[in-house]
Parts: sequence; C-alpha cells; structure tokens
Amino acid sequence: MARIVMKFGGTSVADLDRIRNVAQRVKREVDAGHQVAVVVSAMSGVTNQLVDWVRQLDPLHDAREYDTVVATGEQVTAGLTAIALQTIGVPARSWTGWQIPIHTDDMHGKARIKGIDAAAIESRFEQGMVAVVTGFQGLGSDNRVTTLGRGGSDTSAVAVAAGLKADRCDIYTDVDGVYTADPRIVARARKLDRISYEEMFELASLGSKVLQTRSVEIAMNHRVRLAVLSSFKDLPGTLICDEDEIVEHHVVSGIAHSRDEAKITVLKVADRPGIAASVFGPLADAGINVDMIVQNISPDGSSTDMTFTIGRTDLERALKVLETNRAEIGYADLRPDATVAKISVVGVGMRSHAGVALTMFRTLAAERINIQLITTSEIKVSILIDEKYTELAVRALHTAYGLDG
Amino acid sequence: MARIVMKFGGTSVADLDRIRNVAQRVKREVDAGHQVAVVVSAMSGVTNQLVDWVRQLDPLHDAREYDTVVATGEQVTAGLTAIALQTIGVPARSWTGWQIPIHTDDMHGKARIKGIDAAAIESRFEQGMVAVVTGFQGLGSDNRVTTLGRGGSDTSAVAVAAGLKADRCDIYTDVDGVYTADPRIVARARKLDRISYEEMFELASLGSKVLQTRSVEIAMNHRVRLAVLSSFKDLPGTLICDEDEIVEHHVVSGIAHSRDEAKITVLKVADRPGIAASVFGPLADAGINVDMIVQNISPDGSSTDMTFTIGRTDLERALKVLETNRAEIGYADLRPDATVAKISVVGVGMRSHAGVALTMFRTLAAERINIQLITTSEIKVSILIDEKYTELAVRALHTAYGLDG
Repeated sequence: MARIVMKFGGTSVADLDRIRNVAQRVKREVDAGHQVAVVVSAMSGVTNQLVDWVRQLDPLHDAREYDTVVATGEQVTAGLTAIALQTIGVPARSWTGWQIPIHTDDMHGKARIKGIDAAAIESRFEQGMVAVVTGFQGLGSDNRVTTLGRGGSDTSAVAVAAGLKADRCDIYTDVDGVYTADPRIVARARKLDRISYEEMFELASLGSKVLQTRSVEIAMNHRVRLAVLSSFKDLPGTLICDEDEIVEHHVVSGIAHSRDEAKITVLKVADRPGIAASVFGPLADAGINVDMIVQNISPDGSSTDMTFTIGRTDLERALKVLETNRAEIGYADLRPDATVAKISVVGVGMRSHAGVALTMFRTLAAERINIQLITTSEIKVSILIDEKYTELAVRALHTAYGLDG
Repeated sequence: MARIVMKFGGTSVADLDRIRNVAQRVKREVDAGHQVAVVVSAMSGVTNQLVDWVRQLDPLHDAREYDTVVATGEQVTAGLTAIALQTIGVPARSWTGWQIPIHTDDMHGKARIKGIDAAAIESRFEQGMVAVVTGFQGLGSDNRVTTLGRGGSDTSAVAVAAGLKADRCDIYTDVDGVYTADPRIVARARKLDRISYEEMFELASLGSKVLQTRSVEIAMNHRVRLAVLSSFKDLPGTLICDEDEIVEHHVVSGIAHSRDEAKITVLKVADRPGIAASVFGPLADAGINVDMIVQNISPDGSSTDMTFTIGRTDLERALKVLETNRAEIGYADLRPDATVAKISVVGVGMRSHAGVALTMFRTLAAERINIQLITTSEIKVSILIDEKYTELAVRALHTAYGLDG
C-alpha cells in the first residue's frame, strides 16, 4: 500500500465527462489498495471568467476580494469530483483550503504555503476515504481565503504530498511531460524522462508553464517524488528527482521562455547610496516581484538610469507605485515596455562546462537579435529580448545546444 | 445613524452593471451616515448551473458536496460587490458564512440558522466598513459549508439583522412588494402596503416566492422590521410588521399557490397504532418534510390508504426511502403524483369570520375543480388540486374574496 497524491489541472476537469474520467483514474489507484488524496484545479475557463469580472470592476482590485472570488472555481471542482467518485462506489469527501487547513502567509493573490495540518485527511484515510482537495488556495492568518497565483494547484499538490509524507505526487496535465523546450514552438523538442529538482526549479521560474516554481521548491526541500503525466494518454511522463538518480547529463537540459515580462526604466535617478532601496522598497511593499535589474551610468555622472523587469500583469500597479513615490525617489521619467521576452538556458552541466553563455550570445548575434539585459546563476543564463524574436531565439538555441530530437 | 441590512437577490446582481447599481444604492445609505451590512445572492443563473452539474453527476447526490459546490455562487457575488463598493470609495469587506461564522445545524441542503457571531462585522462597522455577506449559507457543526435551501439568502439577511440588532432589513428583489396574489397569474392583484408577520409567514410557507418562510419566522421572533422593495424602481414596497401596526384588515389578505408539491399514496398499510410513525419516521430521518396528510379507511377495514404531500424535488428520494423500508412498513403499492398544486387563502381576519373555507369550496365547485386534500390552520385554508387548474383557481378565489384591485 502506498500513499499517493494525484493532481488534475483545469483541462483535465474541464467538463463533467472529464471529471468522470478523473474519478475512474483515481478508482484504479484505490482499487490497487492505495490511500489517495486528489488535488483539483478549477474547470478550465472558470478562473479566467472570474478574474475577468474582477478586473472589469477594478483593474487595481483589492487582492483579498480577488482571492474570495477566484478561489470558488476549485471548490466547485472538488465537490463535483467527490460526487463523481461516490457514484462509482469510492467513498470521498471534498476539502477546501480553509477546512484542512492549508496555512499560507497573507500575500493575497500569490500567497506562500507555510504548512498543512494533515490530521483531518489522515483520519479519513483510516476510514478508507479519498480526500479531494481544492488546489490553488489556503487560509491566511487573517482568516481569509488566499490564492497561490497561477499554477498554484501544483504547489497545493506537492504541499499536500509533503504534509502526508506521500510516496508519490503525480501531476496530471494536458502535456505528457517536461520537454527540452515548448513543443508548440520547437517541433524537434524532446520529452525528458528525468530532470533534477534544481533544473526543473529554474525552468519553472523562467517561464516553462509545466509546473509552478514554488511546487518544485517544496518538492525539492521535502524530497517529494514528483511526476508530470498526461491526463489523456497512458504514457510514462517525466520524473523530477535528485540529480544522483539521473545517469546521462547534457550541458543544457532545456530552453525556457517567458512573455509574461515587462521592463521599466527609471530615468535619471540620483547616483547615491540607498537609491535602489527607495525604488524597490515600495514595490516590495506592494507585493510586486522584481526580476532582472541593471543600473547604467548616465553621461553626466551624477545621475543614473535604472532598468528592471517585473511580471507584465504588475506593470500598471508598479507604475502607480513609482508615481506615488516620485518625490521620495526623485527621477526624471518612467519608460515602461511590455513587449519584451525572457529566454533562458538551463542545465546542471554548466557547473563543469565553461562557454555556455558565450554560445548563447553568439547564436543570438548570428540571428541579429539584440540582448537588452542579462542575468546568470550557477545553472542558467537568461537574457531579455524584444518579444517578437521569441520563437526565433528559442529554436536557434535549441539547435545550438544540440537538443534537437 | 441607523443600522441597516440590505439584501439583494439573484436578478439584482445578475451582471457587473447591476452589481455596480447595488453598490450605488448601498453608498446612498452609507452617505446618509448609516452602518450597512449587505447580503447577496448568487448572480442569477449561477446556482441553477451548479445544481444542474451536481444532478447530472448524481440525482441522489451527497448533500454535503452539493453544499460545497452550490455555496460558491454567493461567494463570487460577495467578493465582486465588495470590489464594486471599494471602487466608488466605500470601504467594504466580504464575509462568507464560515468566516463570520453563521452557525447552522447539519441538515445539508436545507440547514437552519442557529446563531450568528456578529462581533467581527460590528468591529468592522466601528472602522466605517460595509460588510458584504454571502447569503444562503452557513457553517455546520461538522466544519462544513451548509446551504439554507432556495430563497435562503432572505433568511441570511434577517438573521444578520437580528444578530446585529439592525433597525431595518430591506429585501431588494425583482418584484416591488407583496401582492394579494402572484401578479403574473392575477392581473388585478394589488400590492399590500403592510402585512403582518403571521400572514406573511403563511404566504411564504404556502408557495409565495417573495420571501423564504424561515426568514419571516426569524423576523417575527426577533421583531425585525422587514421590507420588500424593488431593486430597479424607487417605490415604497411592503412592510412586514406587527398586526397592531396595520389599521385596515381584510378577512383574506392573499392567495398563495405552489406547484412545488408532489403527492404519494401508500396503498393498503395495516390500520394499527404506530403505522404513521413507520411511514414518516424514515422520511424525517432523510430530511424530507411532509406537508398535508390524509388517512382513508379501506373497504376491508383492516388496512388503510395513506396519502401525503412532499416537495416535488424530494419525490424520487422519498420513494426510495419508502421502498427501502417496505418490509418494516408493510404496504401493497406506492402511487406517486407530481401533477398537483396547493392553493391557499390566508388572512388574520379568519380568526373572527366564519365561512371562509366554505366560500373556497363553493368557488372551486362552481369552477368544477376537484379538491384532493384539505388542511386548515387558524389563519389559512389550503387545498390540493390538479395542477392544470392552478391559474383558474387562484383567479376565481381572488375575485370571490373581494381582492381584485
């Protein structure tokens, strides 16, 4: 007997027939004698509709109320899935984030899971019941529903798996695994049988939509054996595991891209100590994550331009925050740009191979693509480019690093 | 300064424009210096969609999961309404049933409110905030969401008003008050300026859809001044108040009808003590309310036929319960009939006027409408007829009691 967490995304529960299919898949594991917790997303399209309503009422909406509205999508799926299981003879009970509870911090709209009280679910396991858990949400210390940001149901699943000390966490989705690049862009992309936690963490952070970053982080910290599988085909997926379990290594494992970026240049800020804090402090207070940062010297020497990237959906709010704090920061103007993309190459092999970044710069230069910003870490190199070159850049790099299948 | 509860039904919050209108109406009361709690229903159509999904998966669905699914509708409206208020400068916060909490019993799908902890809302009032409360739902002792049955948002509103000791509870709806009969059936129906709690309680129990019965009961017990008003027109509605506050009394105040009835005849049950308990005990255990009951003597003297009515939506479940308990009850057959309607005349004047029932029987006889069952109470007479005569019967009675406007 094993303890398993199965997570189904929005397209896997898009309508009643698919929910019935999910129930059948769960039944197979139950019939095999396993204890099963199921984590579900909202039926596809539902979350978009709810988000759209909130934005129509107020583009700068209150994040607490956004969470109250948007979290309902998963609650509907959880109840329906529990009923679908009951109709085929599988005892089941739904659980919302606040019922378990799944404790999060109070950063509404992109809350982080702090811990899970697994006692209630475990006691139902003793009674032979399947627990159907709402993904994407938890309970803040303010006794309000929080949501975890797009893709948050993956994180819910991994957190539940960690809390239950599950033997496996299977993420069922509309792709059949993790690829060397997005197959919709790169026809010759290959599915990876295995990938290390560290690489998957970078790929997820850098724009691969397969798993939410935080889910990989929790899996890595708690050593949760995580698999990405197709909801629709019975195929082996991709296992995310320790580096030691992977025999063959490429220097680069995958190319990620993200069009969810926006760039802001703050023109002519004073070149003095503390200026970065005065710019980024208010943004942090507003819950806006800053990614890449570059500071240039201005010709006159006394002032400087500062360029940074943020999530594209945060652009309007970020500009507002900077305008509100204009007097304290002191700058000449703001230059927003929402037509940028971030391209990244990732691989643990970089630790022992030099020249990975150089290959990247040469490849893009050969395609006449201008690089706007660069950041690097131990196992990745990211660059910012004009978003119209996204596909061209990803394909060229996929070939350059020998990833074409 | 007064403390006011305003309740808006599904058609009043059907889309974002209507939710914006609701926000404007609330703002008027806030600008007048009042403390306001707003109770909202699901956007019209939403609850039906959710109920339909549940029924498609399983007509005999688990009531706990039904509640989990269906309660989401009001949560969406509450969040959106709070945002709509914030955008026009009214500080507002949404509250779900479990957050306040609104305590109910554990009869899922038609739970009864037991009490409300008003402290959280009152502390927000102190901060100048409007509380937007999800109607239709509460928290059971099992820590699960319960729903209060159709029209339950009225009950939520009155219970919140009672808990907050509000000066007024205004129910905004798609009709502009309480009428002597359903204006869609009786063109000459008149709007009542005032009606007593007792009469409104009977009208609501007997099929008038204007207010949920339980809401009137709570209003009566806690002496909540309750008004029914139009969401769309600025007109005086109907005040539900003490009998003493009403100057002019008619013998009959209104005619109610209900097509939500079904009749079951249990053929040839033993004519022995305890037989009623053996039939109705299992139905009560299943949470099925029995309304009218008649027991006939069978020709052979040793056995009897028993006829009773229940809600039409409970028919399938009731038959199943009776079939499950067939051995213990002992009967020859079950005859279900879902094509019946209940017509009722209501008026506190009946206490002092004889002959009200006789007028009813004569009027229906003149229209050649057969009466299947009869029940009476101090201030009402109800009869069960073939549902195809509903409109004919209501119109004839409206004229017979001198109610035509």
